[in-house]
Amino acid sequence: MHNRHGAIGVFDSGVGGLTVVRQLEARLPSESVIYLGDTARVPYGTKSPETVIRYAESCARLLLERDIKLLVVACNTASAFAIDALRERLDVPVLGVIDPGAQAAVRTTQRGRIGVIGTVGTIQSERYRDAIHDQNPDLVVFSQPCPLFVPLAEEGWLTGEVPESVATTYLGPLLAENIDTLVLGCTHYPLLKDTIAKVAGDAVTLVDSAEETALVVEHSLDAMDLRCDHPLIPQFRFLVSDAPANFEKVGAHFLGHVMTEAEWVDV
Amino acid sequence: MHNRHGAIGVFDSGVGGLTVVRQLEARLPSESVIYLGDTARVPYGTKSPETVIRYAESCARLLLERDIKLLVVACNTASAFAIDALRERLDVPVLGVIDPGAQAAVRTTQRGRIGVIGTVGTIQSERYRDAIHDQNPDLVVFSQPCPLFVPLAEEGWLTGEVPESVATTYLGPLLAENIDTLVLGCTHYPLLKDTIAKVAGDAVTLVDSAEETALVVEHSLDAMDLRCDHPLIPQFRFLVSDAPANFEKVGAHFLGHVMTEAEWVDV
Repeated sequence: MHNRHGAIGVFDSGVGGLTVVRQLEARLPSESVIYLGDTARVPYGTKSPETVIRYAESCARLLLERDIKLLVVACNTASAFAIDALRERLDVPVLGVIDPGAQAAVRTTQRGRIGVIGTVGTIQSERYRDAIHDQNPDLVVFSQPCPLFVPLAEEGWLTGEVPESVATTYLGPLLAENIDTLVLGCTHYPLLKDTIAKVAGDAVTLVDSAEETALVVEHSLDAMDLRCDHPLIPQFRFLVSDAPANFEKVGAHFLGHVMTEAEWVDV
Repeated sequence: MHNRHGAIGVFDSGVGGLTVVRQLEARLPSESVIYLGDTARVPYGTKSPETVIRYAESCARLLLERDIKLLVVACNTASAFAIDALRERLDVPVLGVIDPGAQAAVRTTQRGRIGVIGTVGTIQSERYRDAIHDQNPDLVVFSQPCPLFVPLAEEGWLTGEVPESVATTYLGPLLAENIDTLVLGCTHYPLLKDTIAKVAGDAVTLVDSAEETALVVEHSLDAMDLRCDHPLIPQFRFLVSDAPANFEKVGAHFLGHVMTEAEWVDV
């Protein structure tokens, strides 16, 4: 039913998921991507499971109307709360960012002590802990919600006194547990990587699920025989539910280059 | 058409507007209040005028269905962007929080140098500056958006190193202009009053629009002969667009006491 030349659909609550698009672009240069940022209702990380599921489904259905061949939920909170509902209700393969991030953490850890940071919703869902334990129940997982990291990243305060002070407060309990691996369980957090790495110290390896997610997308397309096999020029389209101007400006940081014009859609 | 025993309708993007309800309760103890917190779509302060107007109108219409006699827009961003549209489109008197806050600032200033802090949307709209200059064009107004104050207040980090460091960064340019009055142009900011006052110093008087708004509501009800004149027991109802549990917990801080059960509504 889905054809090889359909785009990969990606959605996030806002701009954060563009870090996943950036990795898809690098790994799968012949694939087209259509991205939806639900910027009118951002953030998802502080909201209830019921509301996140409702919003995620409306985003997914909007992308399905555009004939996508695979859906990537590039938002940790939506992956945590809505992935089961989306797989049940939608007629398209659905991948999230939590399982790939958990796999990367399991491969990375040396001493079996893994820290996970994310939004309140992602941490409360315990989906990272479950995904890690599904692969190896002997690993010890320590979690910490970091609600101020998203506004810091969006404000562009990425280094300096304030972000370091915030990171020191949040990471303190995890570092006290002697973790050796830290999962950045929110697509906004890679922007704060330098500050988080500085506070976490050399003994802790950071895991960013965006790169791992692109790898899983590649394997899934291969498995379903859905890789684009024509030398078409890949298309990148960006949709947003709030005014496009700010998204285009902030989004360039996440994407790593200037983006094409974004289009407003009514979710 | 509107009757004296209808409730005062109040809406905000989330919990912040409860600081206005608290003042209404103190000043108008025989009036009933119905409050809507649009917690599923919070925050408004980072979103475009078009989206804020759309959300404000849907909140207002939901309250109108409940037969309110007066609408208070207890959100600075919604007051900045949507008050004209609401007055034009709705058949109910509408009051915002910006004009009352501006009036209080004009009365307070001694040396005519007023600072205004608020969300990105409120500051970009320049509605405080305009409202102050409408009353006295000789006053000098300095504005500063403070996007991290809302997440700090919601995280409950109200005092200590991080909020002081954030406040020092934001208020620095205003203090350098030698202001004597500072308008807290967001209903979340009263929670950070102690930290803001400490950083601003004794030479600056803080103006909180919630108290002034309650006074304007009283005058307006009198002018329209809409004051409740029966010794009825006033009713307080709380509606929210996201799950009620967190709203009830956080809301008690803003309201100053435990609140009655909140009801979920679909905006």
